[in-house]
Amino acid sequence: MAPTSQNARVSDGASSVRAGILVTGTEVLSGFITDRNGPWISARLAELGVEVIQIAIVADRPSDLLSALEAMRDQDADLIFTTGGLGPTADDLTAEMVGRFAGREMVLDEGMEETIHTILEGFARRMKFDADALREANRKQAMVPEGATPIVPSGTAPGLVVPAGDQLVIVLPGPPRELHDMWPRALATDPARKVLDRAQPYEAFSIRMFGLPESELAKALREIEREDGARLDRLEITTCLRGGELITDVRHRAGDEAAAEGLRAGLERRLGRWTYSESGESIGEVVAKALDGRTVAVAESCTGGLLAGRLTERAGASEYFRGGVVAYSNEAKAQLLGVDPALIESHGAVSPEVAEQMADGALERFGADVACSVTGIAGPGGGTEEKPVGYVCFCVKSRSGELLPRDIVLPGDRADIRDRSVVVAMHLLRYLLEGREPPR
Amino acid sequence: MAPTSQNARVSDGASSVRAGILVTGTEVLSGFITDRNGPWISARLAELGVEVIQIAIVADRPSDLLSALEAMRDQDADLIFTTGGLGPTADDLTAEMVGRFAGREMVLDEGMEETIHTILEGFARRMKFDADALREANRKQAMVPEGATPIVPSGTAPGLVVPAGDQLVIVLPGPPRELHDMWPRALATDPARKVLDRAQPYEAFSIRMFGLPESELAKALREIEREDGARLDRLEITTCLRGGELITDVRHRAGDEAAAEGLRAGLERRLGRWTYSESGESIGEVVAKALDGRTVAVAESCTGGLLAGRLTERAGASEYFRGGVVAYSNEAKAQLLGVDPALIESHGAVSPEVAEQMADGALERFGADVACSVTGIAGPGGGTEEKPVGYVCFCVKSRSGELLPRDIVLPGDRADIRDRSVVVAMHLLRYLLEGREPPR
Repeated sequence: MAPTSQNARVSDGASSVRAGILVTGTEVLSGFITDRNGPWISARLAELGVEVIQIAIVADRPSDLLSALEAMRDQDADLIFTTGGLGPTADDLTAEMVGRFAGREMVLDEGMEETIHTILEGFARRMKFDADALREANRKQAMVPEGATPIVPSGTAPGLVVPAGDQLVIVLPGPPRELHDMWPRALATDPARKVLDRAQPYEAFSIRMFGLPESELAKALREIEREDGARLDRLEITTCLRGGELITDVRHRAGDEAAAEGLRAGLERRLGRWTYSESGESIGEVVAKALDGRTVAVAESCTGGLLAGRLTERAGASEYFRGGVVAYSNEAKAQLLGVDPALIESHGAVSPEVAEQMADGALERFGADVACSVTGIAGPGGGTEEKPVGYVCFCVKSRSGELLPRDIVLPGDRADIRDRSVVVAMHLLRYLLEGREPPR
Repeated sequence: MAPTSQNARVSDGASSVRAGILVTGTEVLSGFITDRNGPWISARLAELGVEVIQIAIVADRPSDLLSALEAMRDQDADLIFTTGGLGPTADDLTAEMVGRFAGREMVLDEGMEETIHTILEGFARRMKFDADALREANRKQAMVPEGATPIVPSGTAPGLVVPAGDQLVIVLPGPPRELHDMWPRALATDPARKVLDRAQPYEAFSIRMFGLPESELAKALREIEREDGARLDRLEITTCLRGGELITDVRHRAGDEAAAEGLRAGLERRLGRWTYSESGESIGEVVAKALDGRTVAVAESCTGGLLAGRLTERAGASEYFRGGVVAYSNEAKAQLLGVDPALIESHGAVSPEVAEQMADGALERFGADVACSVTGIAGPGGGTEEKPVGYVCFCVKSRSGELLPRDIVLPGDRADIRDRSVVVAMHLLRYLLEGREPPR
């Protein structure tokens, strides 16, 4: 799971809109929960052509909030997005601190008070809130910096668009669903639109490969620059290695299409056999398409259900996923998948032979067109010299007899080995469905 | 998945050591991958009694790195931790920028050059690296700010401890495994020890509850303060609602034991029936213990293997987990679990009746002591007025005939419903294993 990045080139710094993202919340800063809002907003802004200069995570403390806002002003942010700290309790300080940062008095927005009142009334009936606390919360949440544009809430917390000198602060709630829901409304406000109109959107594409080392990609990029003469300095290229999948994100501005096409074609020519998606599709989406009406079943041991979990992630999975057996014990392998106990005895539960019988069992028991099996040693115990922790056997087999077996040693701890096994299984499934051998 | 927090009180601001965390990497800032290092370091620092003032995520750009370092100095950080940007490529700038921030020349550390050389030689043999690129990388990574203390690398990137005026900058690599491995070595350096000796560690505990609304916890906290007279203002309390689990983290300094005990006892008295852990144990750990030698099997539909995945997450799961069936299709429910097709026809695949037969099937087929089944409508399609998206039926049953059925409507999108179903199933399993009814 160790992501690495290289060759991140920023084309020209010509973006005319810069943004900072301020995530507030003691529970986020303390590492208690992982922030998803910062990355989400960052990705949305990138699509709009806005350059993100920083994501800052701070606690709900007045001085820390103010310092962070000031630091973003010092870095010439045009837009500052905040998430969190909009609730009714005393430690929800964001609106007030943004008001202070903007040098604006807090005033009661009567329209907002009415809106919140209506929302909270419904809540109160359902949740049996205390009536006094309710009125107080209502009042607090309707206090906004003078001159701010309110954003109609999706939960109970309204958002705000607050002009602050050369900056525009867009104040959004912390719960991701509310944030996502209110995002288009925030961008549609007049002050936000005026700033965003200056941004020059990027064109972006993503090339996803599996099974090659990152050094090969680095070498190809050098060659594409030197031999093909592609102007990679005009592109913003981010590469990331994640559980064996190597993802190259490319962004460029209007006018740099030739450089982008040079990169795409150069990678296709050199490494195309490793590529599984040029459209940003995940391996789950690619496999779902490659199934093309065929059905699939799985038989898992060390992945303990995670492969089935991946195959059922997408809406509509019931159209192609028939089912799976998590055969953790030898008895279950024999009983539910028909694996020959003598084979387990002679070759071991983690062996190519048992993997193939597991795939056979899944094909037959579920009446599927294709089956994939995984049996391995996820550790930390159970390894031997011959079959160390990380040794995993896979078998993909179709009803018509196509067969794709693999046994490999995967790196990492128990969680890594389980996750990587799922990725390998998904790609082996893809190769068989596409009717080709994995490249070497 | 919308986490909320409240009642985060900072006891007294008496912490004498403040830290900032600087996460670098275009791929992290862009939202392309989710940073795990910031929260990890933050949690470690909290254990040491260090107050974290900010986590900042910036791109690998010289000006952004410098601005972020300066902002942390302006906020009086004693320690600044950086992660990422230590690789051999041109966009890995962290060491150089920290040197500039500290006003220190970059000099060649010959001992470090030797160490890296030895490590890279091994790499080069295995990975067929280019020899020239290797020498260059070696040189670049051995250039350190004058007066810096190097930290022996776990991968190829050495860490650094760099004095910078009133600040001490601790430079660590981005790959999480290297970071975690090098962490104790970084803290053990003389300059780091000198600063950390001033920190006053917290005592901490965590109370985990399931099944009650957050407003009940808020009410209990108010009562504990007003009626019991507990000095909650002496404690740092963070509450977080995550997929139906309500987690209360409490930290306090030496001398505030009475307040901490007052809170613990007050919550126990008022809400103890909802508590499943007072030791920070996850529900997976609690269930593993509650099994106490008994074995478990599962039968899943809408969770698609994720419940089995959760039960096999821990090392040693094979001691209690027998296996599972992911019966996505009606045929699979009948074929692999022995569910009566007529029952599916009359009550529907998502019904308490089918859930119980699925549990029966899992008990019998896997020869387990306890079984848990889940069948529901994860959506987005498939809902009806009577059984909307989010309607999920559970059944926990033991071989000796104990029975705990539930059917509920869960909120959220497909991923939320699947995740929450796993959490509900784990808790129902716990209640049956503990021999008690869930509280109402």
